[in-house]
Amino acid sequence: MSNTPAAEAVRAASAAAPHLASASPTTRAGWLRAVADALEAERAVLVETADAETSLGPVRLNGELTRTTFQLRLFADEVCAGAFLDARIDRPDPQWPTGPRPDLRRYRAALGPVLVFAASNFPFAFSVAGGDTASAWAAGCPVVVKAHPGHPRLSRRTAAVARQALADAGAPEGMFSLVEGEEAGVEALRHPALAAAAFTGSQRGGLALARIAAEREQPIPFYGELGSVNPVVVSPAAARARGQEIAEGYVGSLTQGAGQFCTNPGLLFVPSSAAGLVEEIAARLREVPGAPMLGAWIASGYADSARRLAELPGVRTVLGPRDGSGTDEGNAPAPRLLAADLAAFTAAGEAACEECFGPLGLVVTYDDLAALASVVPALPGQLTASLHAEPSEAAGLGSLAEALASRCGRLLWNQWPTGVSVTHAMQHGGPFPATTAPATTSVGTAAVERFLRPVAYQSCPQDLLPPPLRDDNPWGVPQRVSG
Amino acid sequence: MSNTPAAEAVRAASAAAPHLASASPTTRAGWLRAVADALEAERAVLVETADAETSLGPVRLNGELTRTTFQLRLFADEVCAGAFLDARIDRPDPQWPTGPRPDLRRYRAALGPVLVFAASNFPFAFSVAGGDTASAWAAGCPVVVKAHPGHPRLSRRTAAVARQALADAGAPEGMFSLVEGEEAGVEALRHPALAAAAFTGSQRGGLALARIAAEREQPIPFYGELGSVNPVVVSPAAARARGQEIAEGYVGSLTQGAGQFCTNPGLLFVPSSAAGLVEEIAARLREVPGAPMLGAWIASGYADSARRLAELPGVRTVLGPRDGSGTDEGNAPAPRLLAADLAAFTAAGEAACEECFGPLGLVVTYDDLAALASVVPALPGQLTASLHAEPSEAAGLGSLAEALASRCGRLLWNQWPTGVSVTHAMQHGGPFPATTAPATTSVGTAAVERFLRPVAYQSCPQDLLPPPLRDDNPWGVPQRVSG
Repeated sequence: MSNTPAAEAVRAASAAAPHLASASPTTRAGWLRAVADALEAERAVLVETADAETSLGPVRLNGELTRTTFQLRLFADEVCAGAFLDARIDRPDPQWPTGPRPDLRRYRAALGPVLVFAASNFPFAFSVAGGDTASAWAAGCPVVVKAHPGHPRLSRRTAAVARQALADAGAPEGMFSLVEGEEAGVEALRHPALAAAAFTGSQRGGLALARIAAEREQPIPFYGELGSVNPVVVSPAAARARGQEIAEGYVGSLTQGAGQFCTNPGLLFVPSSAAGLVEEIAARLREVPGAPMLGAWIASGYADSARRLAELPGVRTVLGPRDGSGTDEGNAPAPRLLAADLAAFTAAGEAACEECFGPLGLVVTYDDLAALASVVPALPGQLTASLHAEPSEAAGLGSLAEALASRCGRLLWNQWPTGVSVTHAMQHGGPFPATTAPATTSVGTAAVERFLRPVAYQSCPQDLLPPPLRDDNPWGVPQRVSG
Repeated sequence: MSNTPAAEAVRAASAAAPHLASASPTTRAGWLRAVADALEAERAVLVETADAETSLGPVRLNGELTRTTFQLRLFADEVCAGAFLDARIDRPDPQWPTGPRPDLRRYRAALGPVLVFAASNFPFAFSVAGGDTASAWAAGCPVVVKAHPGHPRLSRRTAAVARQALADAGAPEGMFSLVEGEEAGVEALRHPALAAAAFTGSQRGGLALARIAAEREQPIPFYGELGSVNPVVVSPAAARARGQEIAEGYVGSLTQGAGQFCTNPGLLFVPSSAAGLVEEIAARLREVPGAPMLGAWIASGYADSARRLAELPGVRTVLGPRDGSGTDEGNAPAPRLLAADLAAFTAAGEAACEECFGPLGLVVTYDDLAALASVVPALPGQLTASLHAEPSEAAGLGSLAEALASRCGRLLWNQWPTGVSVTHAMQHGGPFPATTAPATTSVGTAAVERFLRPVAYQSCPQDLLPPPLRDDNPWGVPQRVSG
C-alpha cells in the first residue's frame, strides 16, 4: 500500500465518506458555512497572496472571494432544502397493474471521494474551496483537491484555512485534503477508492485525464469543463441600430481579466454589411493596453494559438501585436483581432474554433442570417452562445436561436457571456468538447447532482432506511410519495 | 454519405429530433399511448410469436406485454406531469450578492437520436418498444432500435405495429426505426448524429460497445446495464426461524424464467451453522425440471460459466448436471447448486462473482456477520443486494445494510430481487460493472433522465424561450421560481 500524499489523501477521504454521507443537513451545512466564514476572516491575506501569484488585481480577486464564500453558503442552503436528494417513496400497492407493488424508496446517495483539479484562472472560485469542492461537499462527498501550480502559495493557504475551519467545526478528518503536482493528481485519479473527478482547464489536459478515468479498472465519472470560443451573433438590424454599444460591450467582455475566461467571446459573427462595426471594435481594442496574464505558460500558449488562427487561409489580421514585429509580447499581450468571411471560416473547420485563451477575437462576416444559420450545426459544442438582435426581430429568429441552443449550454440575448452568475437556473456546461459531461453543470446549485447516485430500498424496516427515506423524515426533505 | 439501413435510420431520427423535442406533452404522450394501444390490440399474435422464438411461455409473455404497455402509459403520464424537465426560473435580482443577477431559465432539453440495443431475455419489456425506447420517447428523443437476434420475427412485428401506430397518430417519420445485425448496430453507434445509446445485456458485449461510444470523435453517453450476481444474505436468526420459507423463496427466484434475469440471485450467503438450509435448497432445486433457455447460445454460455465457477478452488458441487456426466444438458439445463466457504470465496476474488446467466446458485457459508460484512466492500458493483433477517435484528444490521447499499442500486429486505416493479421510486442500476452509468436507472420513471441535457437561457425574450420556460407556461409544467 502506497504511502504517498495522494494515496493518503484518498484513503483519508474514503474513511471520512460514510460520516459525511450520513451527516445531517444542519451539520453538513454548518461545515460549509464554517469554511466560508474562515475564508472571509482571512480575506486580506488571501487576496494579497492571490494577487502576487496571478496578477488579477485586488478588485477582481475580492469579488471572486465573495463569489466563493457566497457559493459555499448557497450550497449550504441547498443541503438544508434537500430537494437534490430527489427522495421518492412508493407505498405498497396490491393493485399495481404489473403485479403487487412493494414498498419502494429511492434517493440520491453521496458518491464517495471526489478529486477536484483546480483551475488557474479562478484562484478562488474554481480552485481549492471553489464550486466543485463546495458542490461535492454539499452532496456529502469528501474532497481531495489537486492544486493548480499557477498559485501554489494561495492553494496552501486556502487549504490550511479550510482544514482548520473544518476541524474546529468537528468535521471528519479526511473531508478535505490538498495534493500538489501532476503526478499526485494522476495517482489520486487512479486510486481505487476514488469515486469521481471534476476538472476545469484546457481541452488537452482534460481529455488526457478523462481517458485515465475511463481506463481505470473501475471507470469513474469525469466532469471536465474544457472551455470553448462562445460564438456571438450580431444581427444586421442590431449592427445598424447600436454598433457602438455592441463594440463597447464586446471589447469589454473580450478583454476582461486579460481574456482568461472559459466564457470569453472569441468568435463574433457580424453582417458583412457592417464593416464599420469591425473597425469600431478594432479602434476600441487598440485603446486597451496589454494586461499581465496568469503566467508565462499561459502567455506562451496564447501566442501559439493566436499564431495558428492568424495563419489559417482566408484569415486576415485586423489588429496584430503592438510591437509590429509579429512576435509575442511577453506576459502582457495587448488584444488582437482577426477577421474572415463565412466561407473561409467554414473551410477552416474546427481549426477556426480553437479556443485561444486570452484577449483575441475572430470576427466572421456573413451575408445573411440564413447562411449563418446553416453553419451553426457544425460548430463544436460550446459553453455559451449569444445573440445580439433587436426586440422586433425576436419572433423571426426562432430557428437560429434553436440551432445555437442545440450547440451550447447557455444561450444569451443581448448580453455577454463572461460573468457567470451563481444561481439555481445557471447552466455552465455544454456539448462535447466544451465539456466531457454535457448533462451536468459546474456552476449553480445543480452542480451538486454530479456527485450523487440513486439507491432504492425495497420493503426495508425504518431502522435501516437512510434519514431522507424514513416516514418520520428527520431531515425534513421533500419526499415525492407514490408519484 | 452512406445509404445503409443504419445510416438511414439515424438520419431519419436526426431529422425528426426537433419535432419530437418541441411536441407538446399532450401530443408526445398521445404517441406513447397510441403505441401501447396498438400493442394491446395485437396481443395474441405478439405473444404467440414471442413464445415461438423465446420459449418463455404465454403466462410470462402476457405479463411482460402488460408491463410493456403499462410502461408506455406510465411514461406518457410522466410527460404530462413534466417534473423531469426540471424547469427553473431565476428572475433578475439587482441585489444578488455576486453582482446583478440576470433573468436565467434552465430546463432539460431532449438529447437527440437514441440507439437502443434490445435484450434477449425480455422480448417485450427490454426490447423494441420496451423501457429504454419508452423513456427516450418520453424525453422527446427519436429511437433507433437494434433488434436482438434471439427474436427477429417478434422484433419486426413489434416494430411494424409501433410504426403504424405512430404514423396513424401523426408522429414524425423517423421517430422510430428498427435495424438488424451486429454490424448495423455498431454503424448506428458510430453515426455522428447519434446522441446516446442504451444497452441491456452481457458484460462483454456492453463493455465493447461502451468503448466504441467513448472513442467516437464526439463521445456520447452509453447507458449499459450489464447484469450482476445479486448477493443475498441470510442472517443466522432468519436461517433458524424460517429456513424452509427462505429455501422456497430462493429456489423460486433462482429458477424463474430459467434463471435468465439480470436480477437473478446467483450468490447466497448463509451462516455455516445452517447446513440444513443448504440441503433444503438442494432438495427443492432437485425437484425443478430443466426449462428451455432462450436459445442455444445462451445455454452454451451458461454451461461455460457454470463450469468455470465449479472449477474454482474450494468450490464444491452440491447439485450438478442431472445426467451425471458433468457435461451440459442441451438447451434446458436443470438447476445447479455450488457451495464454498467465505475464505475460498474471498480467495477466488472476482472470478467467484462472475454472472452465470441461468439457474445456478453459489452458496457461500460464513461464520459470523462481522466476517461477512468485511468482504462486502470488495464485491463488484451489483444491481441488487438482499438481506433476509428477523425484524428484531434490524437495528443491529445497520452497518451491513449500509455496506450492501454502497455496492448496489437496490437493497431488499426479506424479498427476492427478481420481478423489478415499474414505479417512480424504482432504481435498476448500480456501481460498475453492474452498469456503465451508476447515476442512472433503466427501469422506473427516472429512466427518462438519461436522455436529457440542461440548457439555460439568459435574458431571452419570451418568443425565443422553449415552452417550459415561458411565463405563460403553456405546457403547465412545474417551474421552480427563484430557488
